[in-house]
Amino acid sequence: MYKAPVEDILFTLKHVAGLDAALADGAFGDLGEDIVDAVMIEAGRFASDEIAPLAAIGDIQGAKLVDGAVKTPDGWRDLYRNWAAGGWNSLTAAEEFGGQGLPHMLHIAAMEMWNAGAMAFALGPMLTMGAVDALEKHGSDDLKAIYLQKMISGEWTGTMNLTEPHAGSDLGVLKSRAERRDDGSYRIFGQKIFITWGEHDFTDNIVHLVLARLSDAPEGTRGISLFLVPKFLVNADGSLGARNDLFCHALEHKLGIHASPTCTMIYGDGHFGAEKGAIGYLIGEENRGLNCMFTMMNNARLAVGVQGVAMADAATQKAIAFARERTQGKAPGWEGKGMSPIIEHPDIARTLLTMKALTQGARAIAYICAYAVDKARHLEGDEVRFWADRSSLLTPIAKSFGTDAGVDVASMGVQVHGGMGFIEETGAARLLRDARIAPIYEGTNGIQAVDLVTRKLPIGNGDHVRGFIVELAKIAGVVAASNLDGFGNTKDRLNASLRDLETATVWLLERLAAGEMAAALAGATAYQRLFGLTLTGIYLAKGALADAGDDQQPARIALCRFAAENLIGETAALKHSIVYGADSLAAARIALA
Amino acid sequence: MYKAPVEDILFTLKHVAGLDAALADGAFGDLGEDIVDAVMIEAGRFASDEIAPLAAIGDIQGAKLVDGAVKTPDGWRDLYRNWAAGGWNSLTAAEEFGGQGLPHMLHIAAMEMWNAGAMAFALGPMLTMGAVDALEKHGSDDLKAIYLQKMISGEWTGTMNLTEPHAGSDLGVLKSRAERRDDGSYRIFGQKIFITWGEHDFTDNIVHLVLARLSDAPEGTRGISLFLVPKFLVNADGSLGARNDLFCHALEHKLGIHASPTCTMIYGDGHFGAEKGAIGYLIGEENRGLNCMFTMMNNARLAVGVQGVAMADAATQKAIAFARERTQGKAPGWEGKGMSPIIEHPDIARTLLTMKALTQGARAIAYICAYAVDKARHLEGDEVRFWADRSSLLTPIAKSFGTDAGVDVASMGVQVHGGMGFIEETGAARLLRDARIAPIYEGTNGIQAVDLVTRKLPIGNGDHVRGFIVELAKIAGVVAASNLDGFGNTKDRLNASLRDLETATVWLLERLAAGEMAAALAGATAYQRLFGLTLTGIYLAKGALADAGDDQQPARIALCRFAAENLIGETAALKHSIVYGADSLAAARIALA
Repeated sequence: MYKAPVEDILFTLKHVAGLDAALADGAFGDLGEDIVDAVMIEAGRFASDEIAPLAAIGDIQGAKLVDGAVKTPDGWRDLYRNWAAGGWNSLTAAEEFGGQGLPHMLHIAAMEMWNAGAMAFALGPMLTMGAVDALEKHGSDDLKAIYLQKMISGEWTGTMNLTEPHAGSDLGVLKSRAERRDDGSYRIFGQKIFITWGEHDFTDNIVHLVLARLSDAPEGTRGISLFLVPKFLVNADGSLGARNDLFCHALEHKLGIHASPTCTMIYGDGHFGAEKGAIGYLIGEENRGLNCMFTMMNNARLAVGVQGVAMADAATQKAIAFARERTQGKAPGWEGKGMSPIIEHPDIARTLLTMKALTQGARAIAYICAYAVDKARHLEGDEVRFWADRSSLLTPIAKSFGTDAGVDVASMGVQVHGGMGFIEETGAARLLRDARIAPIYEGTNGIQAVDLVTRKLPIGNGDHVRGFIVELAKIAGVVAASNLDGFGNTKDRLNASLRDLETATVWLLERLAAGEMAAALAGATAYQRLFGLTLTGIYLAKGALADAGDDQQPARIALCRFAAENLIGETAALKHSIVYGADSLAAARIALA
Repeated sequence: MYKAPVEDILFTLKHVAGLDAALADGAFGDLGEDIVDAVMIEAGRFASDEIAPLAAIGDIQGAKLVDGAVKTPDGWRDLYRNWAAGGWNSLTAAEEFGGQGLPHMLHIAAMEMWNAGAMAFALGPMLTMGAVDALEKHGSDDLKAIYLQKMISGEWTGTMNLTEPHAGSDLGVLKSRAERRDDGSYRIFGQKIFITWGEHDFTDNIVHLVLARLSDAPEGTRGISLFLVPKFLVNADGSLGARNDLFCHALEHKLGIHASPTCTMIYGDGHFGAEKGAIGYLIGEENRGLNCMFTMMNNARLAVGVQGVAMADAATQKAIAFARERTQGKAPGWEGKGMSPIIEHPDIARTLLTMKALTQGARAIAYICAYAVDKARHLEGDEVRFWADRSSLLTPIAKSFGTDAGVDVASMGVQVHGGMGFIEETGAARLLRDARIAPIYEGTNGIQAVDLVTRKLPIGNGDHVRGFIVELAKIAGVVAASNLDGFGNTKDRLNASLRDLETATVWLLERLAAGEMAAALAGATAYQRLFGLTLTGIYLAKGALADAGDDQQPARIALCRFAAENLIGETAALKHSIVYGADSLAAARIALA
């Protein structure tokens, strides 16, 4: 069973992601370490003791659609209500609306633990919080007054309605339509698919954020508006009114996250006998809906990256526990009685260390990205731009590297279990099944790579990413200067990967400058992974260099060295593929004809 | 829907794996190309038209245990009977017992297609053929006379009963026991788990091959005997007699291959009211059972590798078809109307080419391994030893590289489908779920790596593997001499990987010679992958160099170049990890404490 690694998480927050310094210099007001520790310990307790025990039954029973209503698995409704009652839905939201106004990095760390407990559960609140973000930033005061407090408390949940059958990665072609009503509201018509937690029995109301197009809107992405469309209309006194003209038509039968209902939503077909058209309220301006949605999506991308970290950590814990218990054969040097625990076999140890290093690397990247989000929120002036740029740059890497790590590590976890890994009761396979969605949704990892190369590298004409690499090189320099034996060849390996990163970055910036998009995009995914691997090496080193006053430093140095000498060497091949592979990719298209 | 790639398969058999030369020099007697073509075309037709259409229902319904009997999915019983009636069970078996005596490489190629049609289906006959092999080689004439013809025709199926709860990779500790009876037969007692197709409704009888221990046997692997234990005893006239004292107690609930019943088998608990103990017949000699079982296991390992190839090919076909149909966004250079098919996006094209290259590489390795098996069977004298050594060396690589490719490529296939990939109806997720068992069973890929490094590298004091690398270098030399523009930097990349392979091989042989097992085993999995990647590059080149008289040579050259310049560069990092990573692995064990 998953046990939230609160100590590791606090260590990464404080000593790798920068929370310690931020607390010391008052960046988060009067927030103190005691509060941080208490929140993380209690969030971890809830994840381990309340959520994790319901993960298996959630997977087995799944969400069921009965007469248009979704029935959640046994115990899940109470779980949600306890969770909301514990105040967990309001960690970072504005205090004005009942939120606790804590830093985003604490929220991200807590989300890791909740997702590791049961990803299908934590996914619902994740979307509510995205909807809250969009509403806080772009909603009118009237809308905020009616909806925000209840969504922040968790009394109502929120959804994101983007995808349609022909509009997934490319939202410009969506067809759902909106008609203006005389009172300033709208009527919404259309079908949305893949709507996560679009219908459920946790709460009395569900607040859908829906993208749709006005009949006189321009074509493409500049003609899309965002609407708030509640399941039940809300009376002036805040009580629930009539059922709105929307319903869940079907649930998808998915590979994983079975307890999370993935809904096909129908808007405006007169299902409830009223005048046709679901009543919706504009968020932001007409035709500017995609901008509002991007607010949600950026934070959601980081949160999805953290889902990957969560699956990776849960899988690693499970595999290590199994490998300590399971005995088979005799490992070299084994002098115990009978068979050795399989953790003693070098191949198993290598797998477990790989899992651990990828998990910690992906976690560090995500938390550092969250730290940048916080800095951009809490600072003023030029620094805001810098930290907003930093979080923009890191978001696609955090999303893709975290979710790839989730799948890869979960798959390694299945492998460590041998035949038992293929048996569902073991639970290792569920982690792989759940993890598999994360590289896909909130923008596939391929889309993240396109975003990284075409939108994030050019920030400040490439100065931002170049400056970042210089920062990273300084950490490698500290390793070199540290004279700590345990690092082995870490310094050389980090520097080699940094050179690969720099060479690939320069090459890609040149392609962009020359307008050679096909060549730049050919290497986008390889570049994204190169970046993630290099950051993994550097951030493990940063953690290993920190004196946390505990006895774990030797283990952290040893894991960093393992990653540097065994995992990050792949950057050389990735760089080569980026710089020399584009021509061969173009030439090989005939093999796909 | 899967369509057997008969042309690609025939090309690989003839021009890469050596079938053309073998037919020309009469290695397979009077077997001619026309027969080969006809068998492959018809095997492919059966896979595409008969098996593949039942794959989805097999997955959805699964195998069910009802009152001790297994009910297979709708249509599967007829499918099996048609398959056996078509003579497909007897492709390679001895003509003396009704087999067709065809080369093993044709069998392997046909198995690829059947597995790609539905892996859960093809798995059953795979085990029967393994049992046939063991019986042919080690069974007494009496046993052969009774069982062999019916198992070869497919009238009865066969199983392998190895695993017990505490004996998986390490069979030395198994506890099932055998007692001698006065008539020369035995009584068998014990519990076996993970018994594939241990019970079903396809046939009237099932022939279990069971490992068990005599009470006076030595401990460990040298005290294990192999028994033939039929579900129904067989009368002297060949008709079925009494039910034997064995039954299927439970089925596992698995991640994939749902239609393949994975049985817990109970032997000798008096379930059928008779005297306790299932009646069994010794195969080979007492206490030498593991040797007999290894006959089955080596062929089974290659066959499982081919299951990986099959899943990879099915996933690649499905992803390419989807990527041609699905439109999203506009790829660089797209001048068509509206959105481009996603295959036009460089990142998707890269993914599909990677899938294709890995599939073809893994296929070539498997077929070349089968060719070596055939050569060892059909030749005499010193050459037998050479080809037996070659198949021994290649078997762990074919098994591990093929099955890793199966999982990796199936996962890429899910990704190419975007959100649809996570929906079970699409079928991409099923391929990933089915593929996931293959790196685990028939010896985990970690066990394969141990086998490769500790048993296969030392063959002939390392001379065999060194000679093999020289052979491979000759192919790279032909690329260099070919002066074909389309190869780009293929020559340099192949040579770089060959140097990595050579360096790692020498280093590992030195560790073995010095008795430094922990260091050798630390790099075993990395070495296995290094070998597979290098072979992929070399064999794609071998195919690209061949003039098959078709118009596909430019596409083959381009795919080879893509693999050389984008995929196999990983060998440098693998070599580094092997040669320099062992110390860091040992040091990092404190991070697992």
